Amino acid sequence: MPLFAELMTTYRQRSDDALLAYMDALPFNNGQLVAAMRYGALLGGKRLRPYLVYATGDMFGLTLENLDAPAAAIECIHAYSLIHDDLPAMDDDDLRRGQPTSHIKFGEANAILAGDALQTLAFSILADSPMPQVSPRDRLAMISHLACSSGVAGMCGGQALDLEAEGRQVDLAGLEQIHKHKTGALIRCAVTLGALAAGDQGRAALPLLDRYASAIGLAFQVQDDILDVIGDSQKTGKRSGADQQLEKSTYPALLGLEQAQAKAHDLYQESLNALEQLEREHTLDASALKTLASFIIERDN
Amino acid sequence: MPLFAELMTTYRQRSDDALLAYMDALPFNNGQLVAAMRYGALLGGKRLRPYLVYATGDMFGLTLENLDAPAAAIECIHAYSLIHDDLPAMDDDDLRRGQPTSHIKFGEANAILAGDALQTLAFSILADSPMPQVSPRDRLAMISHLACSSGVAGMCGGQALDLEAEGRQVDLAGLEQIHKHKTGALIRCAVTLGALAAGDQGRAALPLLDRYASAIGLAFQVQDDILDVIGDSQKTGKRSGADQQLEKSTYPALLGLEQAQAKAHDLYQESLNALEQLEREHTLDASALKTLASFIIERDN
Repeated sequence: MPLFAELMTTYRQRSDDALLAYMDALPFNNGQLVAAMRYGALLGGKRLRPYLVYATGDMFGLTLENLDAPAAAIECIHAYSLIHDDLPAMDDDDLRRGQPTSHIKFGEANAILAGDALQTLAFSILADSPMPQVSPRDRLAMISHLACSSGVAGMCGGQALDLEAEGRQVDLAGLEQIHKHKTGALIRCAVTLGALAAGDQGRAALPLLDRYASAIGLAFQVQDDILDVIGDSQKTGKRSGADQQLEKSTYPALLGLEQAQAKAHDLYQESLNALEQLEREHTLDASALKTLASFIIERDN
Repeated sequence: MPLFAELMTTYRQRSDDALLAYMDALPFNNGQLVAAMRYGALLGGKRLRPYLVYATGDMFGLTLENLDAPAAAIECIHAYSLIHDDLPAMDDDDLRRGQPTSHIKFGEANAILAGDALQTLAFSILADSPMPQVSPRDRLAMISHLACSSGVAGMCGGQALDLEAEGRQVDLAGLEQIHKHKTGALIRCAVTLGALAAGDQGRAALPLLDRYASAIGLAFQVQDDILDVIGDSQKTGKRSGADQQLEKSTYPALLGLEQAQAKAHDLYQESLNALEQLEREHTLDASALKTLASFIIERDN
């Protein structure tokens, strides 16, 4: 089992290469639109979702090559959402991870269009890429899951809840509702895609895998809020206390810092419990997923 | 065979009902996001693409019920593109068919998000709707076609070409390239979806159907340009001569009005030739498609 940092590098490199190859294969690939898509898709980031696709599929003995399509597809959705979130009418961010955001670099019209086309590309990739081990039924299930997790029932719905919560006090249930949709749905989808790529064996493991993914999805967000309070802005790339200044509802604001940290730890423990049950009942080695869970609550950026 | 106006009303009503039902089934359907999606999806329009789906599938003996999913899906894509095209960073339009555009009515953030979620909904509809007569392989082909026609290889690519052409002189080949992608791809896709829903019989007819669809797609655009010059702004809902004022490249500007009208007529004739060959070789009744072709070049709005 390679070290976590090695795994992360391998998976990130692999999904970046796959993404670039998909974009190089597009027509008009020397124009502004594809340039903006490339830029937005490769702008920093941990590639958490591709990691989850690869690590889940690998657990069932799939080669990484067989997982490139779902890994790239889900990253396209994530990338499109970041490009649109950064727009002046949304969060109005000029910088992401220290780099100019897409609309600063390519203009707003190209950024809107690049986001749109990245979303479409995600579905093209899932519909068209050779995945010889995946049945048409499982491929359709992958497309259905990705659409459900990205749309009103998932990411877009969460984004809308977040917009509606602006300038309002949100309680803990409301905050959880936002995060479960805005970021949680796509994190769960990544694990689901990796499992569906493995066919019936993957489907059988889905309930426990989904328990794991729900827990780390929320843990990721709680830790994000904690890092906003105690993080080093050099490392997070964000101003410390930015949430507080924007009067955003956060876990530390609603629970206090200590209780928020306890919550992150409980979610971490819950994710490990699900994986241990998975290992016992399905004779699988889930260490790559475990080490990601540790990373999520131990990370400093 | 009902009159054209009756057919158009039936198909429009049917696809609007289907669209509304899909949106009513979404979570958070009393929120701003779904309200903006509903508004954008139902804002005026001829429902040309649903018409093509229904008329094509009906020709192969499919019930209209079996065609609701592709008709609604393609209209979701069309609606999302109009919402995003109207944004201040794109065409900056306040009115569409005499009504406030989505960002005027719901704010820019909701309009961006509604467009995003309508695109996703299109793929959800195709992946999830019951279509008992459609094999998983044909369903995947429908998803693949819709994604290809909407993304860089189709509509988004055409939109990008159009952005790049702003303030530049475009020749006839360049203008055709823009329209073939920006509007032509989705019109061809509508006919393809209707044919794929009919399985092998539909696939066999695809080459001729696609010749028809390519011709009417371009004819529609040529006629649009002609109406900008000679049309009654009361009926078109646009100021006459708006293209000329914006120094947009148009068929009348490049060819002269008379030659542009001749081109529209040639394309009309080409579309009929394709359908007559289709009727002879496949023993089909293509009158609903023929009457649409006449409408496209005879319309005054």
